[in-house]
Amino acid sequence: MSKLLIVGTVAFDAIETPFGKTDKILGGAATYISLAAANMQVPSAIVSVVGEDFPEEYFDIFKTKGINTEGLEIVKGGKTFFWKGLYHNDLNSRDTLATDLNVLEDFTPKVPEFYQDADFVMLGNLHPAVQKSVILQMRKKPKLIALDTMNFWMDSALDELLDVLKLVDVITINDEEARQLSGEHSLVLAAKKIHKMGPKYVVIKKGEHGALLFEGHKVFFAPALPLEEIFDPTGAGDTFAGGFISYLAKTKNISFNNMKNAIIFGSNLASFCVEKFGTARVLDLSEKEMKDRLEQFKILTQFDIQVTD
Amino acid sequence: MSKLLIVGTVAFDAIETPFGKTDKILGGAATYISLAAANMQVPSAIVSVVGEDFPEEYFDIFKTKGINTEGLEIVKGGKTFFWKGLYHNDLNSRDTLATDLNVLEDFTPKVPEFYQDADFVMLGNLHPAVQKSVILQMRKKPKLIALDTMNFWMDSALDELLDVLKLVDVITINDEEARQLSGEHSLVLAAKKIHKMGPKYVVIKKGEHGALLFEGHKVFFAPALPLEEIFDPTGAGDTFAGGFISYLAKTKNISFNNMKNAIIFGSNLASFCVEKFGTARVLDLSEKEMKDRLEQFKILTQFDIQVTD
Repeated sequence: MSKLLIVGTVAFDAIETPFGKTDKILGGAATYISLAAANMQVPSAIVSVVGEDFPEEYFDIFKTKGINTEGLEIVKGGKTFFWKGLYHNDLNSRDTLATDLNVLEDFTPKVPEFYQDADFVMLGNLHPAVQKSVILQMRKKPKLIALDTMNFWMDSALDELLDVLKLVDVITINDEEARQLSGEHSLVLAAKKIHKMGPKYVVIKKGEHGALLFEGHKVFFAPALPLEEIFDPTGAGDTFAGGFISYLAKTKNISFNNMKNAIIFGSNLASFCVEKFGTARVLDLSEKEMKDRLEQFKILTQFDIQVTD
Repeated sequence: MSKLLIVGTVAFDAIETPFGKTDKILGGAATYISLAAANMQVPSAIVSVVGEDFPEEYFDIFKTKGINTEGLEIVKGGKTFFWKGLYHNDLNSRDTLATDLNVLEDFTPKVPEFYQDADFVMLGNLHPAVQKSVILQMRKKPKLIALDTMNFWMDSALDELLDVLKLVDVITINDEEARQLSGEHSLVLAAKKIHKMGPKYVVIKKGEHGALLFEGHKVFFAPALPLEEIFDPTGAGDTFAGGFISYLAKTKNISFNNMKNAIIFGSNLASFCVEKFGTARVLDLSEKEMKDRLEQFKILTQFDIQVTD
């Protein structure tokens, strides 16, 4: 079992879906990633920032789950990052109604000393310069650095993004972002171009259409579990990424074959995340539920074809 | 090895994609389905209609491939069904520029006597009343009847479609059509409702996002093979359906587990179909190529996860 260092947002989310709406609830990339790690019993630390308005009960959630928050800075008088989103009827698209960066605007990440030799690093979606600053604070070269990003940084900080990409092993982005970053429509060609930017492994998230893993000419595909209802997609991508890297940190094996398993495990966790608002479902998830659903993934994808002559 | 009876269009297609365009070339659902069957060495017969303008060389293609054309009626003085389509840059959407039904307008299918006891029947996309008329001509109950349809018939002949659905075992439709037919956005719920309309097996085609097979609460998913380039998607859905039912006809096993293999085999054939214009690629496909690509499907989808404690 290796230590996992996580950088990313810790946020208030206000979410509206066709099924209901929430006031400000706990959200943010680092939150979802660390809760995924907790479900895998992988020791993790968050590097992030919140305002003085961040409630004690949310700190308690991290503590209860054994997540190290030494690197979770509290800015006196500051306000926590706030995101408000409205999902459309098909839950595949959403409008962002508010993005108040607040304390994130002047965030300088500080990696706790005990995690400066972590073997696994997950750089959640944040300014690429912040992501890079975390890498530079590592005392020894991690076994694996994974980075998540989004179109916003491709539009506003492409040079810094290309700069940090040279330092990472895995990139996780969605299909449209892969197309934007590469200028290629075909995801196979997009992955090829992104490999050349640095990451040896390219993970392309397609939401309800699953996820692809590329390493050179090798490709693996994991479907999303078909669900009767998707209640709230918020955090599914981060939960997927968190499950992915936690599986690798737990097994300490970064071969392509084990990455396949990690992709499946990420998909497994993400399938729970969407069942309730925000973090509710991943906060209340048993080992047995995860194992049972893994069986469903096997039934969903495994076959034993014999070509007859 | 069982006999496969196929009803569907035999057509002229004129296709334009970002990669080029064709004049009138051989197309139609029954064409693609029967060529898939030929690639699986499954004996098949086409029930369809063409005009006097249908060239001898196209008849020769069917003959060379061992496809029975006794049921392929030639209407004297008539013109063959013509479809013209323009694919957009992403190849996921297209505009239909022309649909000249011609001889299809008054088509009364006649099943050749030798195929009236076929164990497998594939009803390609056509008016549901025509599809039903084929079923009624069968001398004995087939082992499996599969039906493909489209939104056009849901809009224009829903009662007849619901009528024929009661008689079939498998329906293959795309995701948007499944949603339209069921009124459900979730494909899991859509499949549940469609089961109640008759088909025990519901196959939902998602194009580049793969295909789902539902039987009751059981689900299987096959991805489309990620390709560097999709040259022409025309016929991919019919080739998929043709590969699917031909695999079942060849193995004479309609268990859920064997249907998984059939779905993979259909996806395998469809992945070739899109590599060239029209039927060009499936007309020139070796056993070895099919087997090699099957290995790619295994690498793409198979994993061996162990949940550690």
